[in-house]
Amino acid sequence: MVLTCGNGEKMMDVKKDFPILEKEVYGKRLVYLDNAATSQKPNCVIDAISEYYRSDNSNIHRGVHYLSEVSSEKYEHARKKVSEFIGASDPAEVAFTAGTTDSINQVARSLEPSLRGNEVIVTGVEHHSNIVPWQMAGATLKVIPMDDDLNVLIDSIEISDRTKLVAISHASNVLGSVNDIKAICSIAKEHDVPVLVDAAQSIQHMPIDVRDIGCDLLAFSGHKMYASTGVGVLYTGERFRDLVPARGGGGMVDKVTIERTTYLDPPLRYEAGTPDIAGAISIGAAIDYMQRIGMDNIKRHENEVYSYARKRLLEMDDVAVYGNTNEMCGAISFNLDGIHHYDAGLIMDKMGIAVRTGHHCAQPLMRILGVEGTVRASFAMYNTKEDADMLIEGIEKVRMMYS
Amino acid sequence: MVLTCGNGEKMMDVKKDFPILEKEVYGKRLVYLDNAATSQKPNCVIDAISEYYRSDNSNIHRGVHYLSEVSSEKYEHARKKVSEFIGASDPAEVAFTAGTTDSINQVARSLEPSLRGNEVIVTGVEHHSNIVPWQMAGATLKVIPMDDDLNVLIDSIEISDRTKLVAISHASNVLGSVNDIKAICSIAKEHDVPVLVDAAQSIQHMPIDVRDIGCDLLAFSGHKMYASTGVGVLYTGERFRDLVPARGGGGMVDKVTIERTTYLDPPLRYEAGTPDIAGAISIGAAIDYMQRIGMDNIKRHENEVYSYARKRLLEMDDVAVYGNTNEMCGAISFNLDGIHHYDAGLIMDKMGIAVRTGHHCAQPLMRILGVEGTVRASFAMYNTKEDADMLIEGIEKVRMMYS
Repeated sequence: MVLTCGNGEKMMDVKKDFPILEKEVYGKRLVYLDNAATSQKPNCVIDAISEYYRSDNSNIHRGVHYLSEVSSEKYEHARKKVSEFIGASDPAEVAFTAGTTDSINQVARSLEPSLRGNEVIVTGVEHHSNIVPWQMAGATLKVIPMDDDLNVLIDSIEISDRTKLVAISHASNVLGSVNDIKAICSIAKEHDVPVLVDAAQSIQHMPIDVRDIGCDLLAFSGHKMYASTGVGVLYTGERFRDLVPARGGGGMVDKVTIERTTYLDPPLRYEAGTPDIAGAISIGAAIDYMQRIGMDNIKRHENEVYSYARKRLLEMDDVAVYGNTNEMCGAISFNLDGIHHYDAGLIMDKMGIAVRTGHHCAQPLMRILGVEGTVRASFAMYNTKEDADMLIEGIEKVRMMYS
Repeated sequence: MVLTCGNGEKMMDVKKDFPILEKEVYGKRLVYLDNAATSQKPNCVIDAISEYYRSDNSNIHRGVHYLSEVSSEKYEHARKKVSEFIGASDPAEVAFTAGTTDSINQVARSLEPSLRGNEVIVTGVEHHSNIVPWQMAGATLKVIPMDDDLNVLIDSIEISDRTKLVAISHASNVLGSVNDIKAICSIAKEHDVPVLVDAAQSIQHMPIDVRDIGCDLLAFSGHKMYASTGVGVLYTGERFRDLVPARGGGGMVDKVTIERTTYLDPPLRYEAGTPDIAGAISIGAAIDYMQRIGMDNIKRHENEVYSYARKRLLEMDDVAVYGNTNEMCGAISFNLDGIHHYDAGLIMDKMGIAVRTGHHCAQPLMRILGVEGTVRASFAMYNTKEDADMLIEGIEKVRMMYS
């Protein structure tokens, strides 16, 4: 593994850390460009999981024995790492969940009494996971308008007395557009309205500091940041120190009688049942890995590859590329004139190029774009300009087959 | 690994499949008797997880590319295995969740409109995870009485018009008492009241057939049945084919607009967000492993070790063993005269014997027993009479140190 980097050439070496990237698909080198769906895992993360099960596995918190103490320490150490990684004031502000979707649903459930019959402000680029939970909690969604380039028009946020929450994605899983969440938090704060940030598509791409951003809640998933499936994080800042827990069970209670129950303080009150201990440890290992490379280096390298891919796509007359916002990362969505996104994806798959096609769990955005779906290429730290070239080659092949 | 077994000697060989059991703790052989908290994992499960991340990892369902197809197949194959393992009519009746606690909370959330202000019938031995979710949903809990041996008095179930659910553990995580859930389901059915079975402490110990039992809902965790942390199962039988989902997000919706959302059919409607794909696959691997050994063989061997340990404990005059029910498995709880459970656990830990002490997330049962906590030894397929002997040696050491 290359410890310092900052240009495309050197970052290529991190590929070696990801065993799946050595794979051939249909006899072709795998070009994995589906990172917005899930990232691949470096050896150090895979090994951390195996090692945990081979040497340390036990349930946590409630055990007097050696393995339970080791597991508890490792689990709490992972929490501390997450806390520092996102700049939280205290590890108690970090709860492990089952993923971004679970984190957001827990918040929706906890805030339901205030949300029901009131409004949540979202953008037009939200993933279904930042739409459906608020609907289920009985809130009406208000969408901040966008300009023609799909920049969210922050100055057009309309906060009313009925606005109980602003819930916005940091980066779009479809367009790669990055929202100016710091500015949004600042406006919301003027109106004393809390902000939840869905960081599922940003936490792996750039340094994040919750106190600098000024958000009250932040959610993300392990599996999109080089860690395992089934685990995620909910950051709850000072304003939500005493959220009513969304789930009940072991590990989150103080006193239980058949009549009533009292809860422990955060973060344990948000972690009913045995948490994904190995998953939390895998997030810790993934953070170690990202920090060894450096989040600034990752951001710089990814920007370089992303901009290059985007430039090459824009050079193609018969390709529509969606969105052109001030800041972009991760995902690029496009369509080829007269060719269905699904067919394009299928042909590229046969070349070993893994892209995603469809609505990407963002049907409202598809309606804004006036399409049923797109082809989406999405990048991670291990992608290179060579991968972007392969994407372009793939598109050329698709075009050829349809001409 | 020994493929066929049925007596204590042969089953000893399965220990070799569990790498952690070769561990020494404080220079002593690890005697792991904390299986009701979590089980250890065989190599084949650990390897299935690593192999998935090294070779197949991708998000599922929504991808056109090779890896996504492989992952989707493996995930759905695991669902099918679970379905067959518990005798469900159809894999669509099996949803993957984050664990037993999550499964039960999802049901409580879905049924909340009918539960609020009404009654749920439980037993006195329930884990907090089968108490708190019903309280949070606004239900009143009614407890079925027990006799002095802590057998649940099934004929004393009082079902009223306000009874909306019977929610019972199959086996107690504290006593090891096994409830006659088939008889309970039969009585509930006469009153047209649905039954949820918490199988967290039985699925790993005996064959389970949901149709034979006649339950409507069944919940269990991966990590207690030799699979990974962070994953579980919710079985929803015919009566609950159209439960309102408890969580919203990607993967469970049909059409989403900013105004409203329609859901997919089960089981996908219960799996919002990226599920624990590797976790589900680990459950599949654990089922393969258990079935290679044979659930009947596991049950027979465990009964042998359990009965032996219990007999030896009962021979000790200064040890109070709790519960003496018609059928028992897994856990044995006890206390030593005049010695705090925590102190006893600490001394045994130093001998390499991992037991759990405390209230075991069952405070209402502790009140029934009239104690603050117990020492709990809990067994899995890899435990032997030798482990039971070590437990007795441990108790003798504790007694000696306090005499």
